[in-house]
Amino acid sequence: MSRAAVLGTGSWGTTFAMVLAEAGTETTLWGRRSEIAEAISERHENPDYLPGIRLPETLTATTDPAKALAGADFVVLAVPSQTLRANLAAWKPLIPPDAVLVSLMKGIERGTCKRMSEVITEVADVPGDRVAVVSGPNLAREIAEHQPATTVVACSDIGTAERLQAACHTQWFRPYTNADVVGAELGGAVKNVIALAVGIAVGMGLGDNARASLMTRGLAEIARLGAALGADQHTFAGLAGMGDLIATCSSPLSRNRTFGENLGRGMTLAEVTEATKQTAEGVKSCESVLALARAHGVEVPITEVVVGVIHEGLTPEEAAMLLLSRTPKPERYGV
Amino acid sequence: MSRAAVLGTGSWGTTFAMVLAEAGTETTLWGRRSEIAEAISERHENPDYLPGIRLPETLTATTDPAKALAGADFVVLAVPSQTLRANLAAWKPLIPPDAVLVSLMKGIERGTCKRMSEVITEVADVPGDRVAVVSGPNLAREIAEHQPATTVVACSDIGTAERLQAACHTQWFRPYTNADVVGAELGGAVKNVIALAVGIAVGMGLGDNARASLMTRGLAEIARLGAALGADQHTFAGLAGMGDLIATCSSPLSRNRTFGENLGRGMTLAEVTEATKQTAEGVKSCESVLALARAHGVEVPITEVVVGVIHEGLTPEEAAMLLLSRTPKPERYGV
Repeated sequence: MSRAAVLGTGSWGTTFAMVLAEAGTETTLWGRRSEIAEAISERHENPDYLPGIRLPETLTATTDPAKALAGADFVVLAVPSQTLRANLAAWKPLIPPDAVLVSLMKGIERGTCKRMSEVITEVADVPGDRVAVVSGPNLAREIAEHQPATTVVACSDIGTAERLQAACHTQWFRPYTNADVVGAELGGAVKNVIALAVGIAVGMGLGDNARASLMTRGLAEIARLGAALGADQHTFAGLAGMGDLIATCSSPLSRNRTFGENLGRGMTLAEVTEATKQTAEGVKSCESVLALARAHGVEVPITEVVVGVIHEGLTPEEAAMLLLSRTPKPERYGV
Repeated sequence: MSRAAVLGTGSWGTTFAMVLAEAGTETTLWGRRSEIAEAISERHENPDYLPGIRLPETLTATTDPAKALAGADFVVLAVPSQTLRANLAAWKPLIPPDAVLVSLMKGIERGTCKRMSEVITEVADVPGDRVAVVSGPNLAREIAEHQPATTVVACSDIGTAERLQAACHTQWFRPYTNADVVGAELGGAVKNVIALAVGIAVGMGLGDNARASLMTRGLAEIARLGAALGADQHTFAGLAGMGDLIATCSSPLSRNRTFGENLGRGMTLAEVTEATKQTAEGVKSCESVLALARAHGVEVPITEVVVGVIHEGLTPEEAAMLLLSRTPKPERYGV
């Protein structure tokens, strides 16, 4: 039986730990807050992030990273993207020498424009074939409720990907292996920007053709960026690309989509932030994505208008007209 | 200025004729029923298929195929899939010698398992580079209402694709060129089967992860079938693959999805047909798709369970368990 440490007790970290435990992997969660760790270990619940969900009795949590990491075959990282570097530097001496580091995080590091797996190899000083990524259409709450879902486990070493696949495969959660870490990761990082665009279209009252067009042409720009960064194009047509994008853009629970809807109805960034009392990942990352694309000379017209609407006072109507008035194009270019 | 004949006055034929006319292409519709032709020519409406939509004054209709086809640069075929062969044989002597034949149809011919472009090259006896396909996230009603949409115009001769692109490009309708006719056509033909599967999942009360998974793994099986038939894999990640699939699976107006929802709630085929007074394209075509896949040795697990639920008394719960209990897989195989 393999052992896993899951670092981070947010909704996705807790849910993935639950899946690992249900798949027969001995799993310990680490969390900063002792009241959450106690609730998980003693009452088998995480009332802050998964209220009403009964966690497996075999799943325990601790506030002591050394205890969580001892003997772990898989070190699953589920902390906020922008805190990864500092957290991982502190944990590095505690990580078992042969452990595989698994990223559940979806973000681009601000300032460096690095993907999470790049931060991991750099900070933990491990070779790329010891880093894996899990990404797919994975709304945490549905998985915690034992609704069927699929995902991608990506690692350049396919044997490692298969071990991780076995460690998290349950009756309801179906992981597929893929060797393309860059593609799997990029889909998750950029989809929030496209979800904002789809939300804006929904808020403007546009229909299913426009939404499907934005998702598809959004994926085309993620794929062009992926081509520049060395990703396998086919990954984008898979669960970590198209699948995650559809789930995020379709769910009325998605913060990015909801945020976009309010913008599409004519509210300003300040008004939406005020009304919803929270921000959305895509709002924080759209400028990093645009910077990354520009650094590689990649055309990302949808990301550009999202940045325009959020940060430069472009109206949703002007954004739509900018996209529709581009010169005629072949469907595939820049890849 | 180019001239187009659009053969068929259903909702998509009429809408595409409207788009052509708005793009400045001189367009004549042909329809079998004189009352519809008169309504289009004289009152600029098609009350049976697009009630409430004002058609362009420049758009006329006739019941005389010779009149519609005279001098046409583009012959746009928009008749029911299973009637194409007989209709086209009758029209063949009237088709101008250099005209490009454009298919708007989405189906597989029963009995022969042929795609529409195959039927066209065979019956009209024209080379493949004179046959084009238009396919994408194109719910007709939304386009007729001037909501933004995109599509793919596919032709092996890219110059011809570009001429057709120019002939139907308007302020709201944005066509992209693609050289892959087989891929563009296959997406449209198989998506209805996947929409039935998504409908079944919705009817069972499953969430966004399961729906997105079915769409993505559904597209993977369309792509495996496409690989066997010589399609370009990238087409499936585009507007005629993913785009059309998302629009069809997301729209509550989609007959296939609605039909599937009723099956997912536990109704039998006979009960759904009785309740809805209509059948759905995917119900008719799922067996042809499965036959085509088997003839090429392609695994299509979702299509198989859809055929099982519709024709073999499989329950939706058994179908879900069959899909979830398959052996672990890499994300990409069979292509």
